[in-house]
Amino acid sequence: MTPVCADTPCLILDRLRLQANCRRFLERADQLGVTLRPHVKTAKSADVARVACGGQPGPITVSTLLEAQRMVAAGFTDLLYAVTIVPARFERALALAGQPGVHLRLVTDSLPVAHQLVEATSAAGTDIDCLVEIDCGEHRGGLLPDDPLVLEIGAVLDTGRRTRLGGVMTHGGQSYGARGPASVPRIAAIERDAAVTAAGRLGNAGLPCPVVSVGSTPTFLHAEHLAGVTEVRCGVYVFFDVSQAERGICEIDDLALSVLSTVIGHNRAGARLLLDAGGLALSKDLGASGAGGHPHYGLVCHAETLEPLGLVVDTVYQEHGCVPVADPAWYERLPVGARVRILPNHACMTAAGGYGQYLVLDEGRLVARWPRFDGW
Amino acid sequence: MTPVCADTPCLILDRLRLQANCRRFLERADQLGVTLRPHVKTAKSADVARVACGGQPGPITVSTLLEAQRMVAAGFTDLLYAVTIVPARFERALALAGQPGVHLRLVTDSLPVAHQLVEATSAAGTDIDCLVEIDCGEHRGGLLPDDPLVLEIGAVLDTGRRTRLGGVMTHGGQSYGARGPASVPRIAAIERDAAVTAAGRLGNAGLPCPVVSVGSTPTFLHAEHLAGVTEVRCGVYVFFDVSQAERGICEIDDLALSVLSTVIGHNRAGARLLLDAGGLALSKDLGASGAGGHPHYGLVCHAETLEPLGLVVDTVYQEHGCVPVADPAWYERLPVGARVRILPNHACMTAAGGYGQYLVLDEGRLVARWPRFDGW
Repeated sequence: MTPVCADTPCLILDRLRLQANCRRFLERADQLGVTLRPHVKTAKSADVARVACGGQPGPITVSTLLEAQRMVAAGFTDLLYAVTIVPARFERALALAGQPGVHLRLVTDSLPVAHQLVEATSAAGTDIDCLVEIDCGEHRGGLLPDDPLVLEIGAVLDTGRRTRLGGVMTHGGQSYGARGPASVPRIAAIERDAAVTAAGRLGNAGLPCPVVSVGSTPTFLHAEHLAGVTEVRCGVYVFFDVSQAERGICEIDDLALSVLSTVIGHNRAGARLLLDAGGLALSKDLGASGAGGHPHYGLVCHAETLEPLGLVVDTVYQEHGCVPVADPAWYERLPVGARVRILPNHACMTAAGGYGQYLVLDEGRLVARWPRFDGW
Repeated sequence: MTPVCADTPCLILDRLRLQANCRRFLERADQLGVTLRPHVKTAKSADVARVACGGQPGPITVSTLLEAQRMVAAGFTDLLYAVTIVPARFERALALAGQPGVHLRLVTDSLPVAHQLVEATSAAGTDIDCLVEIDCGEHRGGLLPDDPLVLEIGAVLDTGRRTRLGGVMTHGGQSYGARGPASVPRIAAIERDAAVTAAGRLGNAGLPCPVVSVGSTPTFLHAEHLAGVTEVRCGVYVFFDVSQAERGICEIDDLALSVLSTVIGHNRAGARLLLDAGGLALSKDLGASGAGGHPHYGLVCHAETLEPLGLVVDTVYQEHGCVPVADPAWYERLPVGARVRILPNHACMTAAGGYGQYLVLDEGRLVARWPRFDGW
């Protein structure tokens, strides 16, 4: 690859693949009659979010208030902060929600927090919507759909002077653990049913439920229908990754994110190439890699064509990635100083390696540098 | 903890523990008659490096040229870049090495690179020392001590007009895989022997070998002697971590780094607390945790006393950490909004989560904010 960057490791984003992934998901949302609310936690980049939103200033999903702040600063106005709010964050959240034109929705699954939010919004004089988080089986955030607290929290939010009950949201994160796409439609149905059931209970109790929000990349792609759902949140699809590909959720040719890396050594005693992409550059997330039984940190590809070379990064140290090579011919094909690209196992974690920017390529040509941020 | 920070997760550094760890290693180096060259890759902080160096501007070890640049900018002058250099980095390295008073040593294990370095330094008119990396059994970087290339590379570097053969270096990284301290003295002896053997071969060939550099935190602590070694490189000891403690290399009370985190939810259906310290805040490095058979991402501790509560983070998502609780009393003891501190499994990876700074405490009181950097 000609001088896309002076030094490695660096983060490469293939714009055509990004655009294709984003277009495909927007079209599927249209077909299913739901709003797509892309999750910006994967890319943490306003430029990527603009592509995912088809050029509109939202709707988007965020996982941290820093993401919300940066996205509002970049002109996005319709945001769902999809991690349960805690009182220590009210001030930061309400400051954002109070900005002209900004519609920031919060999430809770806690009755005490709902009460505190009602008080805080009254005191601040700021209107805010808050959704109730539902647990559809992953047992991460949320209340089970039939938990009496769903109605209690809903009623508290609904009677707040400045709060509004915004609806319900759930996340079928167990879909990432599915070994293949065949079991995903069932998880998608469970996710949908949980949200729709909770929404129905609120409605039966005379409470509003304007938003019924579900989502994960696998369940959105494989849901048979989304009746009763109003919006879907997905994140990793903008880039996709090896974990998704090895589970049959996408093709390797869909992967838009890669790490450009340099061969820094040959260890013939250990029969491995050494790369300068290690645990910081790739993350230590083995994710769902190695469906065949050999977990790894990423696929080694040709630096220009991005064709997989049939090699993987099987061990990472902080600044070293190790690539086993059975055939010594690889030492000639990839001499010290040669460059390769790594398709990462888990794109969200790899992108968060501290790179600071995406180098954006169109057919191998550097066309832009898009900043990305990390932290909270 | 009173308002050490407005929001979480954030990175907390206990200064007294840091100072004690650093003092102990400096004293041990004195006892063993070697120079301690602390590795700044763990902390990526000039302030931490100053403590590790007893207030002196080096010697230090770096793993990236960004670390070298930042440390030189902060006044450090004696640096070893301990990852094999590639030609694309010569320009950056030589620009640093050419600064007044700066002594930057490089490392190689490649004959072509040695030749290219001789040419590049001549062309640039910059003097530089380069060490030969030796593989003492980990099969990461380096040549086996008896590899003929050790002498060939040494001879090339020695006859360069501007290069000097700086010696040999090796890293007994396999010590991190030891299940307990009992096997570490043997690994330390292997590490030392590899370096001393390679140095002896250079000497027998009439080549200089002023530096014989070894090091890892476990091998330095457990070496029986270091005869023939001139310097030792260690990194993680400045903070230590749960991986080191669970292997018996340090005590839990030595751990200087922790992550302040907020309880953001209770999932009673899943019998877990949810924290806002997930895969980005803690890293996904399971390291050597769970010597007892249950790998985890960190120990949950009291936010002020740092006493372990007997709970662990056993699952992480990007922004959620899950803490299994067998006893529902924990929901009362740690309500939503409560804060805890997590002792991380692998300090180097956790610190690289994008925090940007260390909040430095003396006996629970915030006394400083030390910037840290990430990237390359």
